[in-house]
Amino acid sequence: MEFSELIKTATVEDVLLSRPGVAAVRGTLCITSHHLLLSSCPRGDLELWLLIRNVDAVEKRVSGSSGTVTLRCKDLRVLQLEIPGMEQCLDVAGSIEQHIVIVYLSSLSLLRRKTPSRGLFPSHESLAAQALCSLDSVMLTYPFFHRPPGLRLQHGWHRAVPERHLQRVASQTSQWRLSSVNGDFGACPSYPRAVLVPAALGDEAVAKAARFRQGGRFPVLCYFHPKNGTALLRSSQPLTGPNRRRCREDEQLLGTVLGEGERGFVIDTRSAQAAKQARMSGGGTEPKSSYPRWRRLHRALERGRPLQESFARLVEACSDPALSMERWLGRLEGSRWLSHVKAALSTACLAAQCLDREGCKVLVHGAEGTDTTLLVTALAQLILDPACRTLEGFQELLEREWIQAGHPFQLRCARSACSHARGKQEAPVFLLFLDCVWQLSRQFPFSLEFGEQLLLTLFDNAYASAYGTFLCNNEKERSLCKVRESTHSLWAWLNQPEEKHKYLNPLYSHNPLVIWPSVEPQSIQLWQGFFLRWIRPSQHLDEAWVEIQRLVQGKNSSLQESTGKRLSQPLPEPSAGTENGETGTAGTR
Amino acid sequence: MEFSELIKTATVEDVLLSRPGVAAVRGTLCITSHHLLLSSCPRGDLELWLLIRNVDAVEKRVSGSSGTVTLRCKDLRVLQLEIPGMEQCLDVAGSIEQHIVIVYLSSLSLLRRKTPSRGLFPSHESLAAQALCSLDSVMLTYPFFHRPPGLRLQHGWHRAVPERHLQRVASQTSQWRLSSVNGDFGACPSYPRAVLVPAALGDEAVAKAARFRQGGRFPVLCYFHPKNGTALLRSSQPLTGPNRRRCREDEQLLGTVLGEGERGFVIDTRSAQAAKQARMSGGGTEPKSSYPRWRRLHRALERGRPLQESFARLVEACSDPALSMERWLGRLEGSRWLSHVKAALSTACLAAQCLDREGCKVLVHGAEGTDTTLLVTALAQLILDPACRTLEGFQELLEREWIQAGHPFQLRCARSACSHARGKQEAPVFLLFLDCVWQLSRQFPFSLEFGEQLLLTLFDNAYASAYGTFLCNNEKERSLCKVRESTHSLWAWLNQPEEKHKYLNPLYSHNPLVIWPSVEPQSIQLWQGFFLRWIRPSQHLDEAWVEIQRLVQGKNSSLQESTGKRLSQPLPEPSAGTENGETGTAGTR
Repeated sequence: MEFSELIKTATVEDVLLSRPGVAAVRGTLCITSHHLLLSSCPRGDLELWLLIRNVDAVEKRVSGSSGTVTLRCKDLRVLQLEIPGMEQCLDVAGSIEQHIVIVYLSSLSLLRRKTPSRGLFPSHESLAAQALCSLDSVMLTYPFFHRPPGLRLQHGWHRAVPERHLQRVASQTSQWRLSSVNGDFGACPSYPRAVLVPAALGDEAVAKAARFRQGGRFPVLCYFHPKNGTALLRSSQPLTGPNRRRCREDEQLLGTVLGEGERGFVIDTRSAQAAKQARMSGGGTEPKSSYPRWRRLHRALERGRPLQESFARLVEACSDPALSMERWLGRLEGSRWLSHVKAALSTACLAAQCLDREGCKVLVHGAEGTDTTLLVTALAQLILDPACRTLEGFQELLEREWIQAGHPFQLRCARSACSHARGKQEAPVFLLFLDCVWQLSRQFPFSLEFGEQLLLTLFDNAYASAYGTFLCNNEKERSLCKVRESTHSLWAWLNQPEEKHKYLNPLYSHNPLVIWPSVEPQSIQLWQGFFLRWIRPSQHLDEAWVEIQRLVQGKNSSLQESTGKRLSQPLPEPSAGTENGETGTAGTR
Repeated sequence: MEFSELIKTATVEDVLLSRPGVAAVRGTLCITSHHLLLSSCPRGDLELWLLIRNVDAVEKRVSGSSGTVTLRCKDLRVLQLEIPGMEQCLDVAGSIEQHIVIVYLSSLSLLRRKTPSRGLFPSHESLAAQALCSLDSVMLTYPFFHRPPGLRLQHGWHRAVPERHLQRVASQTSQWRLSSVNGDFGACPSYPRAVLVPAALGDEAVAKAARFRQGGRFPVLCYFHPKNGTALLRSSQPLTGPNRRRCREDEQLLGTVLGEGERGFVIDTRSAQAAKQARMSGGGTEPKSSYPRWRRLHRALERGRPLQESFARLVEACSDPALSMERWLGRLEGSRWLSHVKAALSTACLAAQCLDREGCKVLVHGAEGTDTTLLVTALAQLILDPACRTLEGFQELLEREWIQAGHPFQLRCARSACSHARGKQEAPVFLLFLDCVWQLSRQFPFSLEFGEQLLLTLFDNAYASAYGTFLCNNEKERSLCKVRESTHSLWAWLNQPEEKHKYLNPLYSHNPLVIWPSVEPQSIQLWQGFFLRWIRPSQHLDEAWVEIQRLVQGKNSSLQESTGKRLSQPLPEPSAGTENGETGTAGTR
């Protein structure tokens, strides 16, 4: 049974669409398997083209013979549809609601293919669950059908090949080697096939160390700091448990990382108490006695449900139109979102400092090693490594440290801030990362080659996308679903010359230094461009951005004419990878 | 007795100067009549050149044979001087403290020339008070001695001639006439000599109306809206008192303002209750019965001491280095500064709406009509009138609506946020205006020809200046002190080509429309460029600004070469006044 079979009313005439800040339009509403379309009546223009997967919550209100359906989208847009005919209104709302349930259940049970017992589900959920089984979950989502003109399926997926980064590291140091211990995803189902491990250690020992880490996430290299040869590693928590279990291979792995007389830092993204408590459920942290040369630092970062609720509270406060200044600041404070931004940036700075200033190796982990761990390691790399701050390099960073590193996008981004249902798995960790990147871009307006528009596009695509890049929870799932073979890469799309220019920072100029952000609370700002995007459109600010881009373009083209060179827009660093065909188009911007 | 006679130690060797964010320097400290100078020892560079008037508070700490003097400046800088020798340290601190007292007392008793009875003052205050009498207060301040090279004394004071604006209005409408009823400052000591009054009313009636308004501030025209012929007026409160006194001439004045069947709005910047209570002390507001065609709207704006304390609380919170995010947001909220910004902008929008949308005439007043009244009328003009948004037009607006309109700068800016003494007269109303202008410039990055740097410079000069522009409390005092004849104009200085370019917004392009800001609390931001200026220098943001300026310049010069025209930087509107020699230099930027 396909979703299309669940659609009771596929076309409704005379629907009025209202959105804040935009004039209302009347037209014909169509519900397809993947989209909600509205074409305006007199002109026949397509006024709305919305992935149903983007809908986070549906509210319906029927009065008399017509009704209003309010769609709260995952990208925080709010759309209102006034639909004539009570029955039609309920049909439309019902179809979308069922779609949401299917999407949600499929995100949870992806690849488990369990047939839920009928008794567990109320009426429409049982219908949805039934649909789920035949939908074959992810492979029926829109990215598997989306065929944008001008793009080839294989295009852009080269970024999904981690070997390139790993080879680059291997060319700088012989202390690390490419291991295929996870070639069949056997050692760690959430790691990619190839990872970097200490050269001194064999795959057998690595495989044993993997069994001592939650989800098999043994310590791997994620960043090599060429300046002083230090390295950033990440893992999940060790499975010490209540009996303080030890693992010789894990100790050996972390031992060989450190040179003669060297000391390292373990940055645990949980409080000392939380790390201790984790022992009761089989987890734990590295005890001093077994890892004598690693010093542990605890920095508690919020995750999971409290983070999701922080996000929801902030979004709710932002869209409240009738707040006094005091009440607004009180709710901004109460949401705690900016505290999470500050904490994430501070911890990333701490990791960067240990590496760059103390010259020490750093291992980052929390519990599962798939959320706050990646938040810290990705931010630390952005702070330390100029190559990560180019458009190309940032995409590679996202691939390495988020997508291939096994951040469970499918689970974390199943619901956004407006959904009333509060699951256990949803959490806007990736949004928190994007917000931190925005704070960096605000404090260092020259140092990042990309701008706010890229961060917004990444958020939107992580939550609902026509592309395969953010599908599934890890490489193993992507491999089983044949994502790379059957969907288009988001990177291929946004690196097309006509798209790419939207995402570039016109003021960018290569900054070879470490960028140390100010993490004082006074320096952290609300990301208005994201949180107020649909409420108070920043038309004037966007225009200013375009104007600066135009100025730089004009200047560059006149410079190119005279000198054949581009200024203020240096070519990507060789280390950021220029061997693919896409950066060749940069000159045509 | 001159201040120089109070200086016990004029020169101290081997003083260490520390400032946040700048490397400490050692050098020789000199105290002159007006300045504190520090020249570094090995290089002989002048490292500090500080107007002593800029010092807001002095703290001294002596330990052993040396001491530390901390100077908290009115522009919010904090300077630390480590001085060898306890006695020398106390001498330096004492000299500066005495200077502060003199400045403060002279600001209060300006032109009153009373000799205070000795018994009232403690030791060094009595000395200061004694000095004050012979100092002849304002005429011994630095602007009377400052002779910058390349500037002529008369230069720039043309902006101080209100007749130009008034003539422009007179050319657009015959409903208003230039009146010289205040030619000798007899009708209103805080008004300039020439004001615009309804053409239908004779000077005799105006003079009588003046006696019915606090401080003689009868209703005058401050802005004529050419689009629909409406007008913005301002005054002080009517002196109705507890017995509901009436004044036929005042009623007549406001009656003739309105055309046949027209209605107007009185925007009272106090709450309805505060306006009612003011009757007990002789003031009040326009009762419906006597002014039947004027509808009263109350919008309570903070002023006086609560506003000064709000400023001080925010500055204190900004410089607290060890706050959590929650604590910071709590203190930001507790300071209430952003509420005042929001309230001021909202009230200005209300006035602008009444004029532009309702097509009604508007009279704004609070009690004295010299503070929140000017805040609202000046902001409303900036919102409505594109001519006020040019660099030239903004300077004229400041002259008309703040300086000549009688905002008592001398009293209001006698102390800044760090002074421990809390007087009755100090209030950062002008800063609140500058903050609101900054909010406008942030929301409309194209529409103001000037940038943040101008706003910062205006603040600095309002509190301590080498120029005469912000001296005294009104035109009458300035005339008695011969400010125009004996000091240089700030405008002359900052309109010099080599200065002017610093203040221009490179993205400016003439916007003929009304700019309606968002006044939702979510849209109001902390003015970091001001409040964190010395704490977290925004070096990167400043560089971005300069880079955009450079881009625009490069583009303009290449365009000029080819077409002889400048783009993105249109010539000032004719209405903004181009008849003086200074805008002619714009092309050389």
